[in-house]
Amino acid sequence: MKRDLKSIIAEMTLEEKAGLCSGLDFWNTKGIERLGIPSIMMTDGPHGLRKQRASADHLGLFDSVPSTCFPSAAGLATSWDRELLHKVGVALGEECQAEEVGVLLGPGANIKRSPLCGRNFEYFSEDPYLSSEMAAAHIQGVQSQGVGTSLKHFAANNQEHRRMSTNAVVDERTLREIYLASFEGAVKQGQPWTVMCAYNKLNGEFCAENERLLTDILKEEWGHEGFVVSDWGAVNERADGLRAGLELEMPSSAGVGDQKIVEAIRSGRLSEEKLDAAVERLLRVIFQAVDQRKPDATYDAEAHHQLAREVARESMVLLKNENNILPLAKEGRIAIVGALAKQPRYQGGGSSHIKPTKLDDMIEELAKSAGSQAVITYAQGYTLDSDVTEDALITEAAHAAKESDVTVIFAGLPERYESEGFDRTHMRIPDNQMKVIEAVAAVQPRVVVVLSNGAPIEMPWLRSVNGVLEAYLGGQAMGGAIADLLFGDANPCGKLAETFPVQLSDNPSYLFFPGNGDTVTYNEGIYVGYRYYDAKKMRPLFPFGHGLSYTHFDYSDLKVDRTQMQDSDEMTVSLNVKNSGTHAGKEIVQLYIRDVASSISRPEKELKGFAKVSLEPGEEKKISFILGKRAFAYYDVGLQDWNVETGDFEVLIGKSSADIVLSKTVHVTSSVVILPTFTRNSTVGDVLAYPELAPVIMELVKHSPFGNSPADGEADGLSSEMMAAFLKYLPLRGLAAFSGGALTEEMLNAAVHTLNKR
Amino acid sequence: MKRDLKSIIAEMTLEEKAGLCSGLDFWNTKGIERLGIPSIMMTDGPHGLRKQRASADHLGLFDSVPSTCFPSAAGLATSWDRELLHKVGVALGEECQAEEVGVLLGPGANIKRSPLCGRNFEYFSEDPYLSSEMAAAHIQGVQSQGVGTSLKHFAANNQEHRRMSTNAVVDERTLREIYLASFEGAVKQGQPWTVMCAYNKLNGEFCAENERLLTDILKEEWGHEGFVVSDWGAVNERADGLRAGLELEMPSSAGVGDQKIVEAIRSGRLSEEKLDAAVERLLRVIFQAVDQRKPDATYDAEAHHQLAREVARESMVLLKNENNILPLAKEGRIAIVGALAKQPRYQGGGSSHIKPTKLDDMIEELAKSAGSQAVITYAQGYTLDSDVTEDALITEAAHAAKESDVTVIFAGLPERYESEGFDRTHMRIPDNQMKVIEAVAAVQPRVVVVLSNGAPIEMPWLRSVNGVLEAYLGGQAMGGAIADLLFGDANPCGKLAETFPVQLSDNPSYLFFPGNGDTVTYNEGIYVGYRYYDAKKMRPLFPFGHGLSYTHFDYSDLKVDRTQMQDSDEMTVSLNVKNSGTHAGKEIVQLYIRDVASSISRPEKELKGFAKVSLEPGEEKKISFILGKRAFAYYDVGLQDWNVETGDFEVLIGKSSADIVLSKTVHVTSSVVILPTFTRNSTVGDVLAYPELAPVIMELVKHSPFGNSPADGEADGLSSEMMAAFLKYLPLRGLAAFSGGALTEEMLNAAVHTLNKR
Repeated sequence: MKRDLKSIIAEMTLEEKAGLCSGLDFWNTKGIERLGIPSIMMTDGPHGLRKQRASADHLGLFDSVPSTCFPSAAGLATSWDRELLHKVGVALGEECQAEEVGVLLGPGANIKRSPLCGRNFEYFSEDPYLSSEMAAAHIQGVQSQGVGTSLKHFAANNQEHRRMSTNAVVDERTLREIYLASFEGAVKQGQPWTVMCAYNKLNGEFCAENERLLTDILKEEWGHEGFVVSDWGAVNERADGLRAGLELEMPSSAGVGDQKIVEAIRSGRLSEEKLDAAVERLLRVIFQAVDQRKPDATYDAEAHHQLAREVARESMVLLKNENNILPLAKEGRIAIVGALAKQPRYQGGGSSHIKPTKLDDMIEELAKSAGSQAVITYAQGYTLDSDVTEDALITEAAHAAKESDVTVIFAGLPERYESEGFDRTHMRIPDNQMKVIEAVAAVQPRVVVVLSNGAPIEMPWLRSVNGVLEAYLGGQAMGGAIADLLFGDANPCGKLAETFPVQLSDNPSYLFFPGNGDTVTYNEGIYVGYRYYDAKKMRPLFPFGHGLSYTHFDYSDLKVDRTQMQDSDEMTVSLNVKNSGTHAGKEIVQLYIRDVASSISRPEKELKGFAKVSLEPGEEKKISFILGKRAFAYYDVGLQDWNVETGDFEVLIGKSSADIVLSKTVHVTSSVVILPTFTRNSTVGDVLAYPELAPVIMELVKHSPFGNSPADGEADGLSSEMMAAFLKYLPLRGLAAFSGGALTEEMLNAAVHTLNKR
Repeated sequence: MKRDLKSIIAEMTLEEKAGLCSGLDFWNTKGIERLGIPSIMMTDGPHGLRKQRASADHLGLFDSVPSTCFPSAAGLATSWDRELLHKVGVALGEECQAEEVGVLLGPGANIKRSPLCGRNFEYFSEDPYLSSEMAAAHIQGVQSQGVGTSLKHFAANNQEHRRMSTNAVVDERTLREIYLASFEGAVKQGQPWTVMCAYNKLNGEFCAENERLLTDILKEEWGHEGFVVSDWGAVNERADGLRAGLELEMPSSAGVGDQKIVEAIRSGRLSEEKLDAAVERLLRVIFQAVDQRKPDATYDAEAHHQLAREVARESMVLLKNENNILPLAKEGRIAIVGALAKQPRYQGGGSSHIKPTKLDDMIEELAKSAGSQAVITYAQGYTLDSDVTEDALITEAAHAAKESDVTVIFAGLPERYESEGFDRTHMRIPDNQMKVIEAVAAVQPRVVVVLSNGAPIEMPWLRSVNGVLEAYLGGQAMGGAIADLLFGDANPCGKLAETFPVQLSDNPSYLFFPGNGDTVTYNEGIYVGYRYYDAKKMRPLFPFGHGLSYTHFDYSDLKVDRTQMQDSDEMTVSLNVKNSGTHAGKEIVQLYIRDVASSISRPEKELKGFAKVSLEPGEEKKISFILGKRAFAYYDVGLQDWNVETGDFEVLIGKSSADIVLSKTVHVTSSVVILPTFTRNSTVGDVLAYPELAPVIMELVKHSPFGNSPADGEADGLSSEMMAAFLKYLPLRGLAAFSGGALTEEMLNAAVHTLNKR
């Protein structure tokens, strides 16, 4: 329905307009009956719907209606599957419609800077391209159902430690290439109805009142059309926030924030146009939500549960499979060890925590899949509410393992270890779980570990076991999905969306996380995740992009449709992938770009494309990628834009970031001409990079002692290398400094003038 | 002779005063005959005297008089021997007196940030304490002879790449704790007559015109009494430099700089008082030099050569000695392989390069030490002027090795690989040298490698050889010193003053060196050298402080004279060291301090004391250290001062940074009380750190929903850990934000006011 928003706004009083800029209560926007402005509800997400019942408390934390619990983002991202994320989004949108929710608060697109961040389970990846692609697909899925999303937490909210007061100090290039890039793609492709600003400060200003972030970049550069909502409680000074581009304060400040806006406008500190523009953005989304409401919508909870199972299967990663211990045979004695098999950790703690419509019983699912020829036993092994080892439980587990043909240990992080609100301080699983793994491995050579955790852990016990399945936080159908994978009814196909380091101290942010006091400086810069491990030639435990399958894939026939291109053109890359094994399966093909030689520091390679392909045994398919300027570009702080340096680039095709199997070199030519302005402090070498300027330099050199240097060898200890370097790095003023007056300031200034006369 | 400098200055014209602020020519200050102001000469150093003959060219590079070439600073530092450095300084001072030189340009106290820096051979260490102790001893030695020094290059001149134009961006704490600390100790203890400012910019301003550096810190904080001289050609804008505290421009700018000073004063942009103060500093040093001149001074060149040999023996490090392959027996067939044995690399290239009074013939010295029972052969193995492998040379070397009982390979960096003026791009020795090592090791199980290089190299061949002696650039008596050590006539006692990483990419600055364009950001911060390898739990090839001996030392009886102290007190630490082996030898004992728990990031441990002790077999000595505040302090950017956090510290005694053998815990109490100012953005946790303020918080919490939260367990998925963290990190304004209006702005502001009323 078309409405004239401007005339609605014209009818609103100043107080009504200011009032619309904060919530009615914890979850709803304000309606204005006399103007026909409705109220819409927002609820937490993003891997399920957390709609509180009517009796919402002031913290908005308790008693929500049941909804389907899908795997959390950390798992979803390992699917590298845009369609799957879209499907999840559609299902979430249906549930929102059924519950009359207008905006689902998610997805999160923050980058996993440190594995310790307590909220990593809600985020997708350490790589901005993968993260933004996943976020965009999620957004498109939800919004296809007429329900809004809220892309969060914008920006640089990469830790829970002091999250409401810390100042993230991030240099511009790092911000653009890593932290903002993850949001940029999601905003441009997904156009989320709302974006949620983060609690923290970014480079000295609260994100909630960071004009550069919320207006210059988000609205103007990226063209975001919706509104910005504060993370709950993120507002500092309300009027400053509105000026910066924060349209909606949540939760309700009971009129305090509205009053501050009114006062700021009355005193002239804030323009009413700014407020009108904010109200227009709010109304546009509010009416959009209401117009697309589907009355009496329902959803099929059982079908959504089955979808959750399908999604979970694709959201797990087979990390290790020595001697093909998996899939398990559907016979013999199978010991299940570990309390996490009975009390599965299938979602994370905090605002995203939902009440599932049902929950798989892991043991039951395993028994079902194993069938009647197998005997399944269970031993608890450890308790989840303490790290203390109980000898009786260990003995029982070891006994069960010894009596079995194969033992599956369920291990991982208890909820008290990771949650929204605080960060981990180490990467170990509890001691009592490690003891169980050791005790079992000591008596049983055939051991598989299934992990439930929202972020990487250290695995000092890795060599003691044959198989490891990383299940992440797999949602309400995790049990069934694990059973499907362990027994080969489905083939694992997930690949890691983050690096698993050998030890915490290997992580790039380690020395600088979580900062000192209220300052965290991102000193590792652009070297986040595999960009760091690559550059430092440091071997991780499991590299970014790693994941095993029950079948084998062969890559061949890498082709590019051109080997030379302008950066304004596009290039098509194709290759063939064949399933050369005996199981049907899916393969995630990764495309990385490497700048062969660059005048500035760049990562060894960066992910610029990926595709997932499903193949029957023996089947072969051709897949292709299209690469544009951005695939080859870095963010040039001087230009304030993305830039490609003319030169050779390698197109690398990998099974993981550490397993590149095909490559091709292409040449990309920049369409940007950068003409430097020379000064007396420009170096001789910098000027001579432009051969046409050499005569000017030669004229200056004539007056300096360099014009008449002894030949190499005459000066003991002064190699020609040194003399060449000396001259190359010498500022033009240095030619004068060493001339004993022969080269005057006037001659120098005239020469600089000539150099700039192009 | 006492002079009234102020009245001399009063008699000078403005032009004369400005004129005194730049050199007469390349090496001399200006004299003013009518006022009896003499001229003094400065010459390059610092490991020998490079005085040019009268016919000095405009670059000051060629044809210098002979002088004794001592080991360069990289080697000297491995002695960890203050007395030895003092002795070298005395000898250099004597040579300066004999040559009528007033100021010797050195020592260098820049920190070895990257092993690639082309000038590392002129610097002491990666550790500021060791570096400043070495520099201070050198300065005191030279100046004891009535000759001045010039502590250089001040500051953050840690690379040669674009050294005259690059901007070193270094955060304040890193600057204070690492890069300035190395100069600070040397200035305070050594009081060098002059300090030489660096070419580069520091945090946006050329060091030559950096007032904070040259005046606020150097002159005012540290109390430097001498003058600052520009590195040759470092002046950018002369008047800005003078204002900033740069007294002397070198070399002569033929009046250009003087004229700029005169104009600045005439136009009022510079005060004449500033110029007068500069002239006074210049005159003080010039007269000091002249007054202490020793007419007709001479020195004993042969005695200095013997000193150079003694010093060289202490300036080498036995890195590896498998199966006690060293010392060599003085019998049998000994093959010497490698062109570096005939063309030794005994000093670095660039301005420090001198003409030695004589030069040991390595083969001759080896033959002399080996005696008549041994047969020495020589094979060239490789050429120094190319990296290309010559098969004939390899074959010859392998043959010689095969025919020998033991083979000594001389390897290292050719001059074209490292020099002032440019940085290395990798850490390998030339391919043809590596090929020789491999070829020799393939046919001869008993191989010793002797290395000549100014900075660490990678050693992929390390496992193939039994022994490695790091000789650095050992000066003119290097040949004799190596012979003394190889055959056991002297016992190696040097220990590394820098970490040797396994590979270049392990180095902390690797990702950020040498910067992009004209900016180099020191992102690794305080984590330089062992501070990084320690914190990252990364194993180096050879750790900082490592060095072997032909004997063994036992450490015992670590005592502290108190286990508790105020940071304003001092603590005495003592221990016993015993030579439990069969050779006489010297041991370098290292004392590190570890802050057990700290609210800010600190290195695992930091060097805060060292002692060198000489012991006969069976002999035991007690050594002691005195620790003051600085040993426990970090630089607090907020306080703008060094600060000790009250708490436990470990006093660690090590044979190297990786071999800590004794430790004791002490408690240090801070004498500084820091009272924070609270704001509405202070977190609940930060306020509750002061238990007496709890009632104010409790009153606020009463009005927020947190005062009435459901008990743990009621909220599914919300652990008590999360709720506790949430509240701890919540800003006070957040209590209001979640109160639904119950907690008003007025109540909040009143509470903040109360919190600050202490």
